[in-house]
Amino acid sequence: MRHETLGEHVACELLGLGIETVSRTVVPDDLEEIGAALKHALARADLVVATGGLGPSDDDLTRQAVAHVLGRELDEHQEIVDAIQARFAARGSTMAAVNRRQALLVRGAAVLPNEHGTAPGQWIELERQVIALLPGPPRELMPMLAVLVGGRLAARAPLARTERRTLSVTGLTESQVEQVMQPLYARWRGQPIAIAVTTLASPGLVELHLRASSDSAPAAARVLDEASADAAEVLGNHLFSNGTPLEAVVGDLLRARGYRIAVAESCTGGMLAGRLTDVAGSSAYVERGVVTYSNAAKVELAGVDPRLIEHEGAVSEPVALAMARGIRERAQVEVGVSVTGIAGPTGATPAKRVGDVVIAIDMPGGADVRTLRFAGSRYVVRAQAVQAALDLVRRGLAP
Amino acid sequence: MRHETLGEHVACELLGLGIETVSRTVVPDDLEEIGAALKHALARADLVVATGGLGPSDDDLTRQAVAHVLGRELDEHQEIVDAIQARFAARGSTMAAVNRRQALLVRGAAVLPNEHGTAPGQWIELERQVIALLPGPPRELMPMLAVLVGGRLAARAPLARTERRTLSVTGLTESQVEQVMQPLYARWRGQPIAIAVTTLASPGLVELHLRASSDSAPAAARVLDEASADAAEVLGNHLFSNGTPLEAVVGDLLRARGYRIAVAESCTGGMLAGRLTDVAGSSAYVERGVVTYSNAAKVELAGVDPRLIEHEGAVSEPVALAMARGIRERAQVEVGVSVTGIAGPTGATPAKRVGDVVIAIDMPGGADVRTLRFAGSRYVVRAQAVQAALDLVRRGLAP
Repeated sequence: MRHETLGEHVACELLGLGIETVSRTVVPDDLEEIGAALKHALARADLVVATGGLGPSDDDLTRQAVAHVLGRELDEHQEIVDAIQARFAARGSTMAAVNRRQALLVRGAAVLPNEHGTAPGQWIELERQVIALLPGPPRELMPMLAVLVGGRLAARAPLARTERRTLSVTGLTESQVEQVMQPLYARWRGQPIAIAVTTLASPGLVELHLRASSDSAPAAARVLDEASADAAEVLGNHLFSNGTPLEAVVGDLLRARGYRIAVAESCTGGMLAGRLTDVAGSSAYVERGVVTYSNAAKVELAGVDPRLIEHEGAVSEPVALAMARGIRERAQVEVGVSVTGIAGPTGATPAKRVGDVVIAIDMPGGADVRTLRFAGSRYVVRAQAVQAALDLVRRGLAP
Repeated sequence: MRHETLGEHVACELLGLGIETVSRTVVPDDLEEIGAALKHALARADLVVATGGLGPSDDDLTRQAVAHVLGRELDEHQEIVDAIQARFAARGSTMAAVNRRQALLVRGAAVLPNEHGTAPGQWIELERQVIALLPGPPRELMPMLAVLVGGRLAARAPLARTERRTLSVTGLTESQVEQVMQPLYARWRGQPIAIAVTTLASPGLVELHLRASSDSAPAAARVLDEASADAAEVLGNHLFSNGTPLEAVVGDLLRARGYRIAVAESCTGGMLAGRLTDVAGSSAYVERGVVTYSNAAKVELAGVDPRLIEHEGAVSEPVALAMARGIRERAQVEVGVSVTGIAGPTGATPAKRVGDVVIAIDMPGGADVRTLRFAGSRYVVRAQAVQAALDLVRRGLAP
């Protein structure tokens, strides 16, 4: 599951323990504002998680702000200095003087070890509340949070358990999803164990996040499983996973058939290959990609007949089909995919508008081609085109 | 300038008018929590901007929450219904019934037209404060905000003007940047017109956001220009732009020399080509890219001698140089760039660790190759490798 922001990730992890996040506040690197936000949070919640501001910079002020709000001292701990120095030494460099700041602990805090960076986290127990200070960089925060979720936090979580499911949808707009899901939402809200739904939309992707809370985790899970089955019926083939990214779904389908894939892209300029290879182990089935930005590249790398480009235009169904077939043949793989289009903001012709995209696939079952029109910025058009191309592969390979 | 979140973008735009954002809060799709956040914001600020929750979904509750907090009615406006219907009709579809919700205005609100979506924004003037409701999708929010910044908001902004500068740095870690910048920060803080600095780090990129406020915009600008010149001296060639993305800097350098570029990538799997073509008009200088994930592709598409791969390994300086030279020759362009490495989490060999990456360039001035070692997840390793490859091109082309 991808999250837009770190805060969303933290909230989602806490939800798994039945801890609802009632507010997330972002403040500037300013002692007073950080302090005001902390006081506000302490007035509303049992658990306050602060992320970031534990680095070595002048504007890393979280330690100071927390100490000030709690009226506690900050103490430098030599064993943390030693750990940071050892970390630098292991990489063949020496600790900068500014990193000593990271060894300052709010008095009474327990250290949360950081295996992926220099800033340790801090766990501060008050009379009835807890403040957790976590580092900002995702690759440091996420593992530290996972340890907390499995340990210190689980021990303090409410008994009521929240279960969740994600439904990942492509090929429908947010409004279209809402329209077909409305009757289900109405029913879900009225159930003894109600289901709450959050919709997240990004180019070519609508994610429905379902959650249900109950004293009994199995009961909540059962309700969500039934709901997911009902949703699958109305969403049909547009539902492609339970939170797994589309490129990983495609990868699994390719593996299951023992197929390899090669792509020829024009307007998406490498983004389609980039998405396919975002999956660990994708070298098992991604043979190659070519970014045929020039017509010469379309001819040389994908074997497109130059006369076809001249007669039909580079953004056309015959050319897209020729690119897919050409890259499949040259790479000697089972699946060839192509994308050609006009990402904008420039490049429109009398015949083709910005956002016009043609995608094609060539595979053992035959070939398929689609002409699509996307709206939005250059990035949004390209991201939608990539998503549509991945979905064409998914539908072609689906059992 | 890229921003991590929409909230950051909004804050940055407001800062340009001298409006400091003292708090940004994210709340769940829950009437009570949205209301509590609104009340909190109204107690602290003259301007409250709410984004999102104006869609057609059941969980789009901002309109209701604001009406409730203000004790005002929500009225359906027929002219907004008509506008939404017309928008659907123009795309050859019909308005879904759920979209009528988007025509509900808080009583007394002015409509902020939305040219990129169905949800209009709302501008609500209270006795001394203003609440602006803006849609959540970036491509709808950003143009609407730009109109406000140029009009209604400018009319209410404080006289004191804030100027800002961005310094974009690559090839140094956040700690390293902090270390070399420390003496400057100390001086900047003590000046009559003080400079505040925020550091944003992402893989292969450290951005320093400088801002200074004064009654006189030219005075603030002068202070920042001097500071930027001082920073340029200590950061040296690691400073690559004032907020312009590295791929656009590289594009400008290629255009200035009249050069075209072609790339051969292995571990970055298309991401380097994707970044280069993220720039509008990049078809003028990006000739092609090849994603040589298999050794066969390295041989066929980049002309690498298979014996070289066998003797040296696919992740080696000789192979990277051969890929850069090969793609340059085949594409008949001036600049060839290559990336080969182990993105992980699998794929390590006795000789090569996860995160080992080799990048090379071949161009009229000669060839260059670098062996680098990155830490982090598959995505972080790949993103750093792309950034390093772009930077190799920048340094190669710099006057």
